[in-house]
Amino acid sequence: MSFEAKINAGSFKDSIESISRLVDEIKLNINQEGISSVSADPANVAMVMFKLKKEGFEEFHVDEEMTIGFDLNRLEDILSVASMGDEIEMQSEEGNQLSIKVSGFDYKISLLDPSTIQQEPKVPDLDLPARIVLEGNKIRKAVRASEKVSDYLVFSTKDDKFIITAEGDNDSVKMELDESQLINIETSEDVRSIFSLDYLADMSKSIKKASETKIRLGTDYPVKINFNIVDENGEVEYLLAPRIESESTTSP
Amino acid sequence: MSFEAKINAGSFKDSIESISRLVDEIKLNINQEGISSVSADPANVAMVMFKLKKEGFEEFHVDEEMTIGFDLNRLEDILSVASMGDEIEMQSEEGNQLSIKVSGFDYKISLLDPSTIQQEPKVPDLDLPARIVLEGNKIRKAVRASEKVSDYLVFSTKDDKFIITAEGDNDSVKMELDESQLINIETSEDVRSIFSLDYLADMSKSIKKASETKIRLGTDYPVKINFNIVDENGEVEYLLAPRIESESTTSP
Amino acid sequence: MSFEAKINAGSFKDSIESISRLVDEIKLNINQEGISSVSADPANVAMVMFKLKKEGFEEFHVDEEMTIGFDLNRLEDILSVASMGDEIEMQSEEGNQLSIKVSGFDYKISLLDPSTIQQEPKVPDLDLPARIVLEGNKIRKAVRASEKVSDYLVFSTKDDKFIITAEGDNDSVKMELDESQLINIETSEDVRSIFSLDYLADMSKSIKKASETKIRLGTDYPVKINFNIVDENGEVEYLLAPRIESESTTSP
Repeated sequence: MSFEAKINAGSFKDSIESISRLVDEIKLNINQEGISSVSADPANVAMVMFKLKKEGFEEFHVDEEMTIGFDLNRLEDILSVASMGDEIEMQSEEGNQLSIKVSGFDYKISLLDPSTIQQEPKVPDLDLPARIVLEGNKIRKAVRASEKVSDYLVFSTKDDKFIITAEGDNDSVKMELDESQLINIETSEDVRSIFSLDYLADMSKSIKKASETKIRLGTDYPVKINFNIVDENGEVEYLLAPRIESESTTSP
Repeated sequence: MSFEAKINAGSFKDSIESISRLVDEIKLNINQEGISSVSADPANVAMVMFKLKKEGFEEFHVDEEMTIGFDLNRLEDILSVASMGDEIEMQSEEGNQLSIKVSGFDYKISLLDPSTIQQEPKVPDLDLPARIVLEGNKIRKAVRASEKVSDYLVFSTKDDKFIITAEGDNDSVKMELDESQLINIETSEDVRSIFSLDYLADMSKSIKKASETKIRLGTDYPVKINFNIVDENGEVEYLLAPRIESESTTSP
Repeated sequence: MSFEAKINAGSFKDSIESISRLVDEIKLNINQEGISSVSADPANVAMVMFKLKKEGFEEFHVDEEMTIGFDLNRLEDILSVASMGDEIEMQSEEGNQLSIKVSGFDYKISLLDPSTIQQEPKVPDLDLPARIVLEGNKIRKAVRASEKVSDYLVFSTKDDKFIITAEGDNDSVKMELDESQLINIETSEDVRSIFSLDYLADMSKSIKKASETKIRLGTDYPVKINFNIVDENGEVEYLLAPRIESESTTSP
């Protein structure tokens, strides 16, 4: 059982960071197709599904399917010394240790026993009636603007408009994006769900400004936020549970 | 009673920041001429007089004179999302709420009841014998240099020289600016007053490096520091009470 | 007894900072050759030998040998207001006060009585069998990479290779530099010593990326790290005691 790969340092950093926004330790599945992981945050409010096809690597060899466990923060710390353009060589035998060569340094990282890491959560099968595609930059700015007035944000659609609102105790903000400001919108009904800005802020940091971001929404249903990394060879999908308005909650 | 205006985001940020250095909540007077406010800091040591003529706005309409109250920090927080070149549209009916449109976002901000905000302080009528005009950059650097050695700074004049000194327990600093280094100086007598660097540091952050700054001084009298913002259409004047040397104070 | 000198602000900042990484107060010796100091850090683990020849100054006059004592942090604070290209004029009579003119400001700094400052430590006479010369950038990166995994670093040589390793509880890193990656290496035997990364991190901040850095090493002996500043007119030498592995220490 052995794994060997070469990848651009910037691409690998982007991949790791998109997951580490939500979780500290992951099980990474490695097979002939590439690498992938599914993790839930400790509070079970959000999930991140990550895939990177072998085409996203400069070299990629694995002799049989394997699962390795590691601490994302330790890995990020080590990668922080590498420059974006550097090349990373990874190698693991038997899954106890990961050897990383980068920028002239030769690291040996102890891997975690995958059985000690949280079980892969089951990804719920959701039928979400609204699909919105927009520039990453728009979602990032909307999250930042909403944070200024509230801890929660409402995503809704109305007649092919995507509407983002946040309402605080004193102030509120609203952004309406019509078809001309979106890349695409398809809705079979008007939808509306409320989400925690804490989670959305973490997630939106991984969305590149220029990237196409897909959002799938329902009413009082989780949101799926999906975008590509590493030149279309990688895919990140976040799933975030809605905040259900209780009687005691002021309606945003 | 309604107010509507358009203004460049950078100009509006500069205006708000020049006041928020000293106070958190203000009463803003709006009339056919433009907007203005007069506020004192909570300790009553400093005042800020602010005016922005309607010519500093791209559009400006008010049907009758009105006074609105607001929290400067909340406004700054919201403006932090805007880019310098963005355009801000403001609108208020009846003075309960301010609507701000900027960068595609539509904010509603609750206004404060002006009667709950500190009364406008009376601006003292001072006859200050020395008038100095100099580049903003010089006053900013003098304040920074003085902070390195003391908590107080002395502004004085002697024979058409403007002299800035600060004396700490161990170290001291002195800067002498003669007519060739000043834009202008007019004095009818030599003057000397001591001021708190805490206040001067806050004030000097609003002075643009290249702007003409006017200083009016007396002996053991307040200083007036005056400069234009928004291309000569706005004016900020700070007034700072002197620190009177007591018997027990080491003479700086 | 008087001293007068002019020097570029950036050069003087670099000089002061190379010493202040390790000590707060120094005795500076001034004579016809230039200025120099020898200091040990408070824990007596590291020493810094500093020399700047009079050729590194634009002007330099001293009538008789003198020693002045000063607080490096106060001096750095004052220099922080100067721009890199500014010129500093220093002047001291009798060694009680240092006058510094820079960027239009005239500072008077109280000097410390040299007799109150730590005695100059005796520099040990060491015969270190390995001499390595390499680019400053390589040593800086090696220190940063090692800090990610451990608190200690091992410098060793083997057959004309310079090897840097750091071993943490879980992870390790190794960098091997052969003759082609070094400017020079001369060894009469293989050597190996362990050093604290806390000290090395402070020291390496003063090493310019492009500068030639000389390292002299033995086995369980102090390391000497030596580099020039101010265009070859100044020299900084750090000496750092090794950490001797006790029985209870895991061998790195």
